[in-house]
Amino acid sequence: MFQARARAEILKEVVNVVSTLVDEAKFTVNADGLTLRAVDPAHIAMVDLTLGKDAFEEFKADESEIGIDIDKLSQFLKLAKADDMVDLKHDEDKRKLKIMVGDITRHMSLIDTTGMSDPKVPNLELPVSVTVRADDLMQGIRASETVSDHIALVASPDGFEMSCEGDMDQVHWRKAKKDLAALEAPSSVRSLFPLEYFSNMLKSVSSGSSVTMHLGSDYPVKMEFKIAGEKGEVRYLLAPRIESND
Amino acid sequence: MFQARARAEILKEVVNVVSTLVDEAKFTVNADGLTLRAVDPAHIAMVDLTLGKDAFEEFKADESEIGIDIDKLSQFLKLAKADDMVDLKHDEDKRKLKIMVGDITRHMSLIDTTGMSDPKVPNLELPVSVTVRADDLMQGIRASETVSDHIALVASPDGFEMSCEGDMDQVHWRKAKKDLAALEAPSSVRSLFPLEYFSNMLKSVSSGSSVTMHLGSDYPVKMEFKIAGEKGEVRYLLAPRIESND
Amino acid sequence: MFQARARAEILKEVVNVVSTLVDEAKFTVNADGLTLRAVDPAHIAMVDLTLGKDAFEEFKADESEIGIDIDKLSQFLKLAKADDMVDLKHDEDKRKLKIMVGDITRHMSLIDTTGMSDPKVPNLELPVSVTVRADDLMQGIRASETVSDHIALVASPDGFEMSCEGDMDQVHWRKAKKDLAALEAPSSVRSLFPLEYFSNMLKSVSSGSSVTMHLGSDYPVKMEFKIAGEKGEVRYLLAPRIESND
Repeated sequence: MFQARARAEILKEVVNVVSTLVDEAKFTVNADGLTLRAVDPAHIAMVDLTLGKDAFEEFKADESEIGIDIDKLSQFLKLAKADDMVDLKHDEDKRKLKIMVGDITRHMSLIDTTGMSDPKVPNLELPVSVTVRADDLMQGIRASETVSDHIALVASPDGFEMSCEGDMDQVHWRKAKKDLAALEAPSSVRSLFPLEYFSNMLKSVSSGSSVTMHLGSDYPVKMEFKIAGEKGEVRYLLAPRIESND
Repeated sequence: MFQARARAEILKEVVNVVSTLVDEAKFTVNADGLTLRAVDPAHIAMVDLTLGKDAFEEFKADESEIGIDIDKLSQFLKLAKADDMVDLKHDEDKRKLKIMVGDITRHMSLIDTTGMSDPKVPNLELPVSVTVRADDLMQGIRASETVSDHIALVASPDGFEMSCEGDMDQVHWRKAKKDLAALEAPSSVRSLFPLEYFSNMLKSVSSGSSVTMHLGSDYPVKMEFKIAGEKGEVRYLLAPRIESND
Repeated sequence: MFQARARAEILKEVVNVVSTLVDEAKFTVNADGLTLRAVDPAHIAMVDLTLGKDAFEEFKADESEIGIDIDKLSQFLKLAKADDMVDLKHDEDKRKLKIMVGDITRHMSLIDTTGMSDPKVPNLELPVSVTVRADDLMQGIRASETVSDHIALVASPDGFEMSCEGDMDQVHWRKAKKDLAALEAPSSVRSLFPLEYFSNMLKSVSSGSSVTMHLGSDYPVKMEFKIAGEKGEVRYLLAPRIESND
C-alpha cells in the first residue's frame, strides 16, 4: 500500500535527481518514507536518494516497490505549479500509479521491478571533503565545456580547483580555503571525471544550494546535498577516469 | 472598396483563429463588417468568423471579397505591438492589399478567390452545451497529449469530462457541474475527436476567455467564443471520430 | 606587452561588432588603446573599430598584434554579467591570452597573425548622410526579410527610405526629414545592398543607439556608430549590389 500527497516542487526535485542517471527507476517505500538506488546504464555513476515521510503533506505506506517511468512522471509534473498539491496512489491490482493534480488524473502503468537490481553503495575512504555553492560550480563547468570533455577536481589544504585541459586552451576555476563554505584536506588530491556526468549531476541541485564533495586521488567523487527543504538527501557517486601518462 | 484601421491586437486575434485551419482565406467585407468561412484541407473542421465594423477604429467597405495569404499577414502583424494602429486598404486595380503600421508599408499580392468555395454551416441539433475557461481546457489537453492522439468529450447532467485512453495510461480531466461556468445537459453524451485539431482550436482562444461547446453523441462539436472585446464571434465545427468496438 | 581590465559589457560590444564579419581577427594594441580592421571572407564588407584606453578600467600596452578566435572569446564572455570585471593579459612567450573573470581563468591559444592582411579603408566621396535610430531600422529590416534578400537605401532632400521589392510584394519603410535625427542630402541617391549583411551589422548596434549612414548612388554605404559609452567607434563599409535593368 502506498498513498501520499506532496507539493509538486518536492516531486520535481526527486525527478530531476533521478532522471540524470536513469529513465526507469524502482522506488522503495515503507512507513518512514521513500528510497531509491540506481546505477546508470554505463555503470559510471550511482544515485542514492532518501525522502523522509515529513517531506510529504500526507504519507501512508507498507513496504513495497514501485517501478516508475521517470519521463512520464516528469511530463505529468510539468502540468503542476511549484505549490500545487499532487496526490499519488498505488493501485496494486491494476499495477498502476494514480496521480492527481487539480482536475487532472493520470493512471500510469508501472514497470515490472522483478529484474531490477539493488545496487550496493561501496564503502569508500575519501580523505578530503569540500563544500561549494552549486551555482559557483556550474559557472566553472560552463567555462570548461568549450575546452574539453573531462574535468579534474583538485583539492589541497589551501583551496579547491576545477581544472580542464584542452589541446589548445586551459580553463581553471579556483577558490581559496577562506572563500569556501568548508574544506577539510589533510593532503592534496586530484581525480579526473567525465564532464557531462558531473555537469548533469550538478544541474539537479537546486539553485542556491551547496554540495559537499568527498574526494581522493584517482578515486570516485561522492557528492552529497539536501532536497525537499532538508527533508530528503541525495548521494551521487561518479567513477574517475584514470589519467594516462602519454 | 475596403479601407479600415484597427488595433494590431484585433487583427492578430483574427489571424490566430483562421490560421488554425487554413493558409489562405477569402474574407467577405460589406458595410457591416467582415466575415469568413473556411474548411480545412482535410475537411475535418470549419471556421465561421464575423467581425463587426465596431471592432475597427475606422471602417468603410462595399461588398467585396479579398483573398489573403494568412501567413504573410501574420508575419507583418508580428512587427506591430498590441496597441499599434494598422491601416488596411484594398487596391482593386493592382489586386493588392496595402497594409501600414508605423513607418512601414507592405503592398501584399492578393489571392484569386474565384475558385474558393463558400462552405455552408450545417444545421446541427446538439442537445448539450457546456461553458469552460479555455485555460482549464488547455491544461487537460496538455496532460492528454502524452497519452493518445484522440480525446473524448463527455458530458452528463453532473459534469463535464475530457478523457484520453492510451495503450498504457489513461488521463481524465473533470469538472463537476458546480465548478463550470454553465452546463445544460438533459442527457449524457460522448464524442471522440482528433486531439491536435481540438488543441489548435483552443490555442486560438485568448487566455482568460471562456468557450461554449455544443455536444452530442458521435456528433461534431461546435465551439463558440468571442474575439475583439466581444465585437467579433467565432464558431468552430470539428467532426467526430467514430469509435469502433474492436 | 598588453594587460587590461574592462567591464564585460564593453568587451561583449566589441565581440558583437567583429563577429558579424569574421571568426578570427587581429587586434592591434598600443599606448592609446585598441584597433581592428577586418574584411569578411566574401570581401563584401569591412569593419574598422577603435576602442580608446579610456574605455578600460586599466590599460597598459606596447605596440603589438594579437590574433583572437572571436568565437572562443564570445563563449568566455557569456560567463560574465554586464558589470563583471574581465582581466586580459598577453603571454607573448606561450602565445596565449590569459582571460580572467571571477574565479575563472582561461588560457586561450592565440592565432598566428603573420598571414593576416591589413585592409585599407577606401577613401569614398559619399554625398548624403542620414542618422537613424537602430531600433527603427531593425523594424524596417524585419518587415523586409520576408519579401526579398536585397534592400535599397534611398535618400532625398525630403527623407530616407528603405525599400524592398519581391516578386509578389513590396515593403517600404520611410521617415520624413523632420522625423530623422539628421539628414544631409543635397541630391537624391539610391543603392542596393544584401539584406543579410546589412541586418547583421545593425544587430551589433546597441538597442537605443543611433547609426549614421553615408550614402551615394550605386556606392558602398558607410555606417558609423559609437560603442563603449562613446569611448569606442565603429565604421562598417558594405559594398552595393549593382541593379541590372532586366
